[in-house]
Amino acid sequence: MSVSRRVMFSSFKLNVLLLGLLLPASTVAASGQNLVERLGYTPGTKLIIVHADDLGETHAVNAAAIKALESGAVNSASLMVPCPWFPEIADYAKSHPDADFGLHLTLTSERVYYRWGPVAPMDKVPSIVDENGYFFHDWEQNQHVDAKEVEIELRAQIKRALAMGVRPTHLDSHQYRLIMTGKDLFDAMLRVAHEYKLPVFVTRDWFADHPYLQQSLGPGDIVLDHTVTIEPEVPAEKWREFYLTALKNLQPSVTEFVIHPGFDNEELRAATRERSTWGAAWRQRDYDFFVSAEFRRILAQQNIKLITWRELAGAVAPK
Amino acid sequence: MSVSRRVMFSSFKLNVLLLGLLLPASTVAASGQNLVERLGYTPGTKLIIVHADDLGETHAVNAAAIKALESGAVNSASLMVPCPWFPEIADYAKSHPDADFGLHLTLTSERVYYRWGPVAPMDKVPSIVDENGYFFHDWEQNQHVDAKEVEIELRAQIKRALAMGVRPTHLDSHQYRLIMTGKDLFDAMLRVAHEYKLPVFVTRDWFADHPYLQQSLGPGDIVLDHTVTIEPEVPAEKWREFYLTALKNLQPSVTEFVIHPGFDNEELRAATRERSTWGAAWRQRDYDFFVSAEFRRILAQQNIKLITWRELAGAVAPK
Repeated sequence: MSVSRRVMFSSFKLNVLLLGLLLPASTVAASGQNLVERLGYTPGTKLIIVHADDLGETHAVNAAAIKALESGAVNSASLMVPCPWFPEIADYAKSHPDADFGLHLTLTSERVYYRWGPVAPMDKVPSIVDENGYFFHDWEQNQHVDAKEVEIELRAQIKRALAMGVRPTHLDSHQYRLIMTGKDLFDAMLRVAHEYKLPVFVTRDWFADHPYLQQSLGPGDIVLDHTVTIEPEVPAEKWREFYLTALKNLQPSVTEFVIHPGFDNEELRAATRERSTWGAAWRQRDYDFFVSAEFRRILAQQNIKLITWRELAGAVAPK
Repeated sequence: MSVSRRVMFSSFKLNVLLLGLLLPASTVAASGQNLVERLGYTPGTKLIIVHADDLGETHAVNAAAIKALESGAVNSASLMVPCPWFPEIADYAKSHPDADFGLHLTLTSERVYYRWGPVAPMDKVPSIVDENGYFFHDWEQNQHVDAKEVEIELRAQIKRALAMGVRPTHLDSHQYRLIMTGKDLFDAMLRVAHEYKLPVFVTRDWFADHPYLQQSLGPGDIVLDHTVTIEPEVPAEKWREFYLTALKNLQPSVTEFVIHPGFDNEELRAATRERSTWGAAWRQRDYDFFVSAEFRRILAQQNIKLITWRELAGAVAPK
């Protein structure tokens, strides 16, 4: 993930504030219908997806995510197809067909000492590779990214995943590139998603800043109510408090907790050493909170139910 | 590395036997002149390169190789440009321009759970990529590999290394693919090496099984006398004995010790877990022997001198 996500997403205080102000019976903008009710739940139900991002990126992330999934701390995740450790998690996905795995469509390589590039032949996608053939670390504000090339790369990632035995339940976007970079890229993602009949992770929280999202979505698309994700403004010692506050203030809705579990070991420290944001210690903190007994307890106390993308798609998607 | 190297290289016992039988003043087949003497040493001199392979493959290999280089245990190494951790070792090479780093030209991805593909656009090199766009794990006996495509890939690897600030001192071949797969691939490697004025790791030990090597080499090419590398036949408890025997039996010559240092940690264990050969424990054993005081002691006792590829090229290469 990246600091530039902060352009789009609210800070710690704002996040918590928003959660406190949520309308109890929010409407789904794309369909005009309440998502909780569309799913067959009673109107007051609080539903969350506890979603691990970035699987495939490193072994430390795969290992932590698998442990968190198997302990029930996490109930959904998405995989980065272009990354070196994708074969490990694809192999796991193949032998665990019930796991709720989406594809974390990836167009940046983010880190400095450990990198990856496109799945499509790089001469077919020149606008998204740097002079050495890797994905760019990050995109500049005015960077030219060709939406046709993006669509080629998205299809290549999905095809590789399918060929390697992954049966994705949803699509989302690494560093929200396909959400926040404008209508052309979002439409490319949506086109591919519709073709493969996969829901895309979108929440109506994002519509105000990015009105093209709502314009492009149709009545058959699933739109979540909210997302909760921790940001660099939260100091390490406030990690637990951030999540507890978010869970206690949760209103009836479908909310995705976007988390980044990983083990703070030599590999992950080396891979992320140029900055601490979304680094090894950060990911260990996420892992620690979500596998804790406290997290399980608060879910029960607050009567919060878990839901997966597979359940969402099965209940909501047009037949 | 791979079991199939055993087709080309002698077993433990044979290796040690050969070392005991070496002629004291061997000739360099390509030039007709003794390499030790060409280098300006007196005829009885024993020269070795202690060469770490596979840098860039994982962080565990980079970290161990850097520590071994900095402690003086290893004096030369080569880098795998297509691998995910190449940026880390390229950064190190850039800030350590005196390090004796070559390029470990790579055409296979070898492992199961952690993989990489070509640096060239994959539609330009279809004969060396599998159906998912990775390099093949390994090559079959009769696999069709297009030498023109190989040359495209070799140039792409060298160009990326140069663009990222690496100034290689030599070229060698991961899993000896470019040495043992026939004249066309060796000639492709040699053509590229000549163009970039880089010596290629070849020893005259290999001429009998692969006569095309000698046919293709010219008088300006450097040909080492021997190589020593440990093979799967050596049980873990005989590791030290293998190297001590090899060092004690060393005759006057220029010999490359091809070793594979790495740290036996979670990352390397996961990356190599499908088989133990050239795995995490194997690489830790190599690291442990070559950083040991015993290795330093035997070098002094046997009056064995270290030489790098940079020194070789500077002393021998045509001006």
